[in-house]
Amino acid sequence: MKRIKLGMVGGGQGAFIGAVHRIASRIDGRFDLVAGALSSDPARAVKSAAELDIERSYDNFEAMAVAESARLDGIDAVAIVTPNHMHAGPAIAFLNAGIHVICDKPLAATVEDAKAIESAVSKSKARFFLTHNYTGYPLIRQAREMVANGDLGDLRIIQAEYAQDWLTIAADASNKQANWRTDPARAGAGCIGDIGTHAFNLATFVTGMVPNELSAELSSFVSGRQVDDNAFIRLRYQNGARGTIWSSQVAVGCENGLMLRVYGDKGGLEWNQENPNQMTFARFSEPKQIITRGGAGLGSGAGLWTRIPPGHPEGYLEGFANLYNDIADIISGTNDNGLVPDLSAGLDGMWFITSCIDSSNANGSWIKRY
Amino acid sequence: MKRIKLGMVGGGQGAFIGAVHRIASRIDGRFDLVAGALSSDPARAVKSAAELDIERSYDNFEAMAVAESARLDGIDAVAIVTPNHMHAGPAIAFLNAGIHVICDKPLAATVEDAKAIESAVSKSKARFFLTHNYTGYPLIRQAREMVANGDLGDLRIIQAEYAQDWLTIAADASNKQANWRTDPARAGAGCIGDIGTHAFNLATFVTGMVPNELSAELSSFVSGRQVDDNAFIRLRYQNGARGTIWSSQVAVGCENGLMLRVYGDKGGLEWNQENPNQMTFARFSEPKQIITRGGAGLGSGAGLWTRIPPGHPEGYLEGFANLYNDIADIISGTNDNGLVPDLSAGLDGMWFITSCIDSSNANGSWIKRY
Amino acid sequence: MKRIKLGMVGGGQGAFIGAVHRIASRIDGRFDLVAGALSSDPARAVKSAAELDIERSYDNFEAMAVAESARLDGIDAVAIVTPNHMHAGPAIAFLNAGIHVICDKPLAATVEDAKAIESAVSKSKARFFLTHNYTGYPLIRQAREMVANGDLGDLRIIQAEYAQDWLTIAADASNKQANWRTDPARAGAGCIGDIGTHAFNLATFVTGMVPNELSAELSSFVSGRQVDDNAFIRLRYQNGARGTIWSSQVAVGCENGLMLRVYGDKGGLEWNQENPNQMTFARFSEPKQIITRGGAGLGSGAGLWTRIPPGHPEGYLEGFANLYNDIADIISGTNDNGLVPDLSAGLDGMWFITSCIDSSNANGSWIKRY
Amino acid sequence: MKRIKLGMVGGGQGAFIGAVHRIASRIDGRFDLVAGALSSDPARAVKSAAELDIERSYDNFEAMAVAESARLDGIDAVAIVTPNHMHAGPAIAFLNAGIHVICDKPLAATVEDAKAIESAVSKSKARFFLTHNYTGYPLIRQAREMVANGDLGDLRIIQAEYAQDWLTIAADASNKQANWRTDPARAGAGCIGDIGTHAFNLATFVTGMVPNELSAELSSFVSGRQVDDNAFIRLRYQNGARGTIWSSQVAVGCENGLMLRVYGDKGGLEWNQENPNQMTFARFSEPKQIITRGGAGLGSGAGLWTRIPPGHPEGYLEGFANLYNDIADIISGTNDNGLVPDLSAGLDGMWFITSCIDSSNANGSWIKRY
Repeated sequence: MKRIKLGMVGGGQGAFIGAVHRIASRIDGRFDLVAGALSSDPARAVKSAAELDIERSYDNFEAMAVAESARLDGIDAVAIVTPNHMHAGPAIAFLNAGIHVICDKPLAATVEDAKAIESAVSKSKARFFLTHNYTGYPLIRQAREMVANGDLGDLRIIQAEYAQDWLTIAADASNKQANWRTDPARAGAGCIGDIGTHAFNLATFVTGMVPNELSAELSSFVSGRQVDDNAFIRLRYQNGARGTIWSSQVAVGCENGLMLRVYGDKGGLEWNQENPNQMTFARFSEPKQIITRGGAGLGSGAGLWTRIPPGHPEGYLEGFANLYNDIADIISGTNDNGLVPDLSAGLDGMWFITSCIDSSNANGSWIKRY
Repeated sequence: MKRIKLGMVGGGQGAFIGAVHRIASRIDGRFDLVAGALSSDPARAVKSAAELDIERSYDNFEAMAVAESARLDGIDAVAIVTPNHMHAGPAIAFLNAGIHVICDKPLAATVEDAKAIESAVSKSKARFFLTHNYTGYPLIRQAREMVANGDLGDLRIIQAEYAQDWLTIAADASNKQANWRTDPARAGAGCIGDIGTHAFNLATFVTGMVPNELSAELSSFVSGRQVDDNAFIRLRYQNGARGTIWSSQVAVGCENGLMLRVYGDKGGLEWNQENPNQMTFARFSEPKQIITRGGAGLGSGAGLWTRIPPGHPEGYLEGFANLYNDIADIISGTNDNGLVPDLSAGLDGMWFITSCIDSSNANGSWIKRY
Repeated sequence: MKRIKLGMVGGGQGAFIGAVHRIASRIDGRFDLVAGALSSDPARAVKSAAELDIERSYDNFEAMAVAESARLDGIDAVAIVTPNHMHAGPAIAFLNAGIHVICDKPLAATVEDAKAIESAVSKSKARFFLTHNYTGYPLIRQAREMVANGDLGDLRIIQAEYAQDWLTIAADASNKQANWRTDPARAGAGCIGDIGTHAFNLATFVTGMVPNELSAELSSFVSGRQVDDNAFIRLRYQNGARGTIWSSQVAVGCENGLMLRVYGDKGGLEWNQENPNQMTFARFSEPKQIITRGGAGLGSGAGLWTRIPPGHPEGYLEGFANLYNDIADIISGTNDNGLVPDLSAGLDGMWFITSCIDSSNANGSWIKRY
Repeated sequence: MKRIKLGMVGGGQGAFIGAVHRIASRIDGRFDLVAGALSSDPARAVKSAAELDIERSYDNFEAMAVAESARLDGIDAVAIVTPNHMHAGPAIAFLNAGIHVICDKPLAATVEDAKAIESAVSKSKARFFLTHNYTGYPLIRQAREMVANGDLGDLRIIQAEYAQDWLTIAADASNKQANWRTDPARAGAGCIGDIGTHAFNLATFVTGMVPNELSAELSSFVSGRQVDDNAFIRLRYQNGARGTIWSSQVAVGCENGLMLRVYGDKGGLEWNQENPNQMTFARFSEPKQIITRGGAGLGSGAGLWTRIPPGHPEGYLEGFANLYNDIADIISGTNDNGLVPDLSAGLDGMWFITSCIDSSNANGSWIKRY
């Protein structure tokens, strides 16, 4: 099977999510990372590329987009793994150059950026993917299928939460990850953008529904922090279902507590990202079941999205790799399972972020969607 | 040690919480149940008393209050275990008769009833106790002590939830417990009164703080239901802390999911009623600890509120019995540990119920406290 | 319903299991504790009885057996809650006096004592009960029923373990509970008698099978300890099933880790005493189920052995009370469900203890049963 | 960094562990798989290589060893992922050719094969690695470090278990994985070889001790099965510690239940492979701690063996990749952390397998080590 030639923007030394994308792209052996503009600092870019054994290193993404689109053996797709305010520039450049874009979430730091990306997507022949990677967990896809099958009946209650504690105290200046994430100019928002959008996306992905309106209360508990570090959000869905999202980066003892709970009039399910190989499902008035990744009682897709037998845990990286695998299918034209988040998920996320801020500024007033 | 003579109003055949009070009063052997007006149906009252081997059965609580206060060997205290709309009448009658009152929660079905009880308490020499029994769990008391000791630092996030599923579908007419609880006239409110007040009380008890204002969204998911069966509530505390309560009786797969999570700037703790003998506690940047009932690392009181060694689980009934034990201490004059919920907790609960309804009717507007 | 008049031998100040028996006898309100020989120290006996408000206190069990059997209002049954070497004396005295005996486990400290009890039981019109209290847990009874129903198919693997850590270091002289339990003269054996017999009994109770032979390796890890504090045991059952028991009082971090796992050719179940309100059950090639006390999917008896709804945890004391409740049924002649362990279980336990010692002394040789 | 050129023997279409090795070798991007003899069926070998985009496909391992050692750009190392009886042939061929060998476990199907490998290792300049992959889990390495640091004190009790259920019924002929594993000629032994050796190795790896003697009871519960499918093993360690291993492939409801529990006189720890990102650790008389992969309270190495922050679960494949990463360090000469299992572990495993069989055949007699 022909491998897909991949480039990367961002992800140089000291970065976090770039390394994750690289591993995710390698796990199933369908991508070769051959080009990069790994840092806005040209010296660091060169050094990072050398360390990673990447053939072609560029000083900046503009040059890279031009050069790669001109090569016969140029990259098929580019992963954009920069801070939020640096998504739009490269995304648009590569879309314009006809190169597929795999963009980290959230879509952008501002609505203006988001609209610019939207415009570029509409004009490009290339595809745009947004790595809401938690949708790649097999049991999350299983949950989506169960909801669609009606196993839960009509949905009533949809709760997602994403709790961390790593920003419990003010970060020191050397913490690169903390610094850009708590800088309004680079991040756009605080925990609602960084992790709240994941929770929102997960709820949307599994239920197949986007809420009509939301009400939010954001807090900045750490003294001097300029972005939110805790958020309580209420959601109203079109079918009458009600939901909440809790997002926090100051919940002491929580590492990466992304949890989803969905209840309908026939059944309920619960999933926790920290032990992602198990999900509980209860039909009303029957014993609760423990559904395992790859185990008994799964739907059509569960076996496709897992590499090893039940009881052999897969984790965050394999879930992320499932997105890369699906993207490889799409780019190579073999299949499009419709599961990879794209521009639409990104725009939903931008509505979520901006509406949370607007609602919180208006004392929790409900903000309608479009 | 002299046993306390106990009476009971309500709790006849087919009742639930009356039997719980009786067991709770027996566990530590400090009460003798000697009198009762167990049912508003006199025949059932007599039959129930006979079954339970209760010496003196009365047709109604008024007669009982008069007669018992007149006897030299009359009851010292009465447990009121009737539906909510039947709390005020007997409570006032026994308070007026100088007999201590142990009243099931919530305080009343209406604000008027609550005020009448408040007035009676203020004039009586007898004490009034409200059985928010979950405060009797040893680890909940331990949590309260840890918060007071500053182990969590300044509190930021306070989340309680109480989720059940037994009212997922419309109850049939024969279900006595479901019927009065879903009747606005007898219950006053739905799940916010029946279980939401427990969650609210628990958060208040552990943190030592009552919120200043709340915002609520109530739902009635089951067709034809006249009271709420799901509630999302936001709370603002005086010190800047923020909280939520989720209360539901339609969350399929949840049996009695009362959970409390509290996070401060130094530590966080989590407790779940369905496994009440364990609590997790994390200091920021240290490994999470599993604190067990009666086990290592407990504070001053933990050993007082437990009967058996760690690893031997105590449950709901023992927690309830801890309240009865404390009440026995108070009535017998040996000790008042200040832990038994009383009128004040009841009035807080009434504010909670009425404000939830008001807020929800006003599209989630914030309702201030007094 | 007429209450049963109960006496107690042992259980004075400083005792552990006596208090447990008293609570267990009170929970369902069917016993009145009216007489006792609570200590072999007469002064302590009197003082203990006064504290507990017990009407008739005796200096010794012999006097008590004689006097109580002579009274018209004498006790119907006696609870024997002394150290192991003090079981036989009072058991025989009360059996001879025609008074039902509720004896704590194990049956005795020596085989001679056990045989003497056996002889007394055979001649007495009174019943003899042995409080292997873990059989009173509702889900254990449910497990027994499921095995009997064939839900697990033909049993293959039966594993029980009972791990504690409270004897990890040598106990100081003031620790009354530790001292008699580590004294060969009073206890007869170490952890195999104190807790290993519980594990053995539980496996036998649930599976309905007693092993044909066993092989054991006992250790005494603590320097100077004269009894075993860790035991590994293998069991062979008549149908070809194989089992193990692990019993330890030096497993650091284990509080009261009694666990049972049973696997047949159709299904498997797992139960852990520290969270006794849940059990998992798997049919081969189906998702594992979480079966809850009183919850959905239970068999015929589950509702009889529980007092409160699912999700409201019952614990060790309620399980113990189920035995007292069953004994009350038997003594009052209303019912005998056949579930209360009796002499037969006690003799099985004595075989278990003595065979473990014999096998371990013979380097793990297999010891046949009878 | 220069990539290591890897070959593979076995792992063609329909294989399981070959695909695992390939993913493990890719995750950290340090190997290129460039040659293979993927099947003993030449047509399948060619087809498999084409599917996997492997440049050089060989009909058999002998030709591959000769050819690759002759090439300037020949492979540096070969992964042998064939059934057990096919380990020795290729291992010896590549060792003789001076090519490093990464061999799946157990070492061999027979003692003769094991000795032949031992001889080849002793004569070769190449290294021999055995993929007891569970040693690659970060928390297992952390556990090893804690034991070595004395955090548990002197070890007393060492328990490992590895329970599966996938061989609960007789496999049908089309199940390639089941068939060779239950064929004595190809597997050498049943569950003791396939998974029992993993449990044995894990206990040895973490404790740093190999037992002096063992006693075993093997069973074949499934009718007609020619190898063991359940094993109970007792172990005696040189320092007086005692251990057990339970290994089963017929424990219904168990997917891949590899669990390790180690108790010393100061502390105890417990780890379960199905949730490998958490481990509990208790110091005597202190609350139990939950130690997380990459989280607070870890030792020196924990951060080296993990790619993503705590709370982002890694799994089986990442643990396996840690071995490949260490092997890459060794082959490239940058580091040898001494953690990769090698011939010595393989010979220990062969002693374990043969002694289990010998002991079981001798009714559980103790078999000494060498």
